[in-house]
Amino acid sequence: MKNLAYYNGRIAPIEEMTVPFLDRVCFFGDGVYDATHCVNYRIHLLDDHIDRFFRSAAALKIEIPLSKAELKALLEELVLKLDSHEQNVYFQVTRATAPRGHAFPVGVKANLWVMLTPGTPVDPKRDMKLITVEDTRFLHCDIKTLNLLPSIMAAQKAEEAGCDEAVFHRGEIVTECAHSNVHILKDGTLRTHPLTCHILPGIAREQLLLRCRDLSIPVVEEAFTLAELFDADEILVTRSGRLIAAASEIDGKPVGGKDPETLTRLIDAVMGAYQAACAPLK
Amino acid sequence: MKNLAYYNGRIAPIEEMTVPFLDRVCFFGDGVYDATHCVNYRIHLLDDHIDRFFRSAAALKIEIPLSKAELKALLEELVLKLDSHEQNVYFQVTRATAPRGHAFPVGVKANLWVMLTPGTPVDPKRDMKLITVEDTRFLHCDIKTLNLLPSIMAAQKAEEAGCDEAVFHRGEIVTECAHSNVHILKDGTLRTHPLTCHILPGIAREQLLLRCRDLSIPVVEEAFTLAELFDADEILVTRSGRLIAAASEIDGKPVGGKDPETLTRLIDAVMGAYQAACAPLK
Repeated sequence: MKNLAYYNGRIAPIEEMTVPFLDRVCFFGDGVYDATHCVNYRIHLLDDHIDRFFRSAAALKIEIPLSKAELKALLEELVLKLDSHEQNVYFQVTRATAPRGHAFPVGVKANLWVMLTPGTPVDPKRDMKLITVEDTRFLHCDIKTLNLLPSIMAAQKAEEAGCDEAVFHRGEIVTECAHSNVHILKDGTLRTHPLTCHILPGIAREQLLLRCRDLSIPVVEEAFTLAELFDADEILVTRSGRLIAAASEIDGKPVGGKDPETLTRLIDAVMGAYQAACAPLK
Repeated sequence: MKNLAYYNGRIAPIEEMTVPFLDRVCFFGDGVYDATHCVNYRIHLLDDHIDRFFRSAAALKIEIPLSKAELKALLEELVLKLDSHEQNVYFQVTRATAPRGHAFPVGVKANLWVMLTPGTPVDPKRDMKLITVEDTRFLHCDIKTLNLLPSIMAAQKAEEAGCDEAVFHRGEIVTECAHSNVHILKDGTLRTHPLTCHILPGIAREQLLLRCRDLSIPVVEEAFTLAELFDADEILVTRSGRLIAAASEIDGKPVGGKDPETLTRLIDAVMGAYQAACAPLK
């Protein structure tokens, strides 16, 4: 198949798949998701993504209809159906299909969705251009929900400005990007927002922190300001979909570029770990 | 028909209707809605609801595929298809059907949804029981979006406490309820949160303020605190679905009940205007 949609056991090309009008996602965005990619038919960091997926669902009291092991087996089986071995792997769960009403319906099972499309992470060598946007999101940004309106409005603003991503800030404090985490290098130390309700616990963020440890680069998990962002030696953007990239411009002003050596070591380490994890199985 | 779902021109019983997997509502909650009801096949305050619906869509740069007059004609035609003349009238627009990506897709039309179910507003004579919940929502509560997770979590909490609604507060400041506006009477004056990004501009709220004017009851549009809520002479909850009701209990403590005369005058005035507006056409 060229691409694949899965909904509660049904499988079809994405463009042909339909879902019930009464799936609660349609009225409330009542669900959570996770996403990673697949190379050589190996799904990158699948256990981590499944763990986070279950944590997101639990935070909203949604019961995923499969165990972690069953979901893993299902995804590993589904990716084999695509012609391309390089895929974007997306999955979500929505609370139920039931007549519209705010409180949870009783006695109905959650719906499991999977979407597979051919694709490969964007080249980490290409620098990103960013814009800054006030962070008006809710206080549940640690949960990977389907309530993403402020993120899409910010992403659209970035697109219209000819940029790749939007950096959110609550007042002076930088939180994260519309669909990435953001970090700075200053005087050889990596600084990143701590894990609070204001940011997603990014799996690419976690990988970056592991590589810092490998390279003996100190990490400080403390929020930084917009002024510190603009003044940073280097700015790093991470997300599962594109792994890692540096930013060279924010709001039209040149940024970073002052510690290319540490930057390159970090990007190479992240890419090396990724390539090792996705190497073809013997 | 017993009930009706409409999606871009297709009509079916709600339980049988399906929508595309790639409707952006499924991944982002990317849409807005409005809702009212219908008695004697007359849709209550339809122009006001359509006006607000277009304002919500414009705030998110979603282009509704019909004019206001066309949408009005469509809804008035659809309600006639139901067996019951008393209906919940719900309509929404979602940005597009397109491959998943945060920024807006280009060259695709928005999707129009309508849902009609038999139903009648809840009896305004029945007092409501409320709970208080910290308001963790985003800063776009003035837009009637499909990003409703904090509201459904709060509504579920109310349900589990055996209550009817949850009152949101940001710190000490009361904003509104999970799916209603809330107001207090104190010393003969009605006090209500001003129209900011923290509350929905309720159409039932607006009707209440009009009835205050008719009855020469002073109105102050200023936020009040939790302490003022508990100390109020009366507490009024309004929403289009159930019009108006008083609250008699919050977090298990008795509240209100200290100005039944003004309360009754207001409820009677709201219900009188509603019944006049929905009387059978001669």
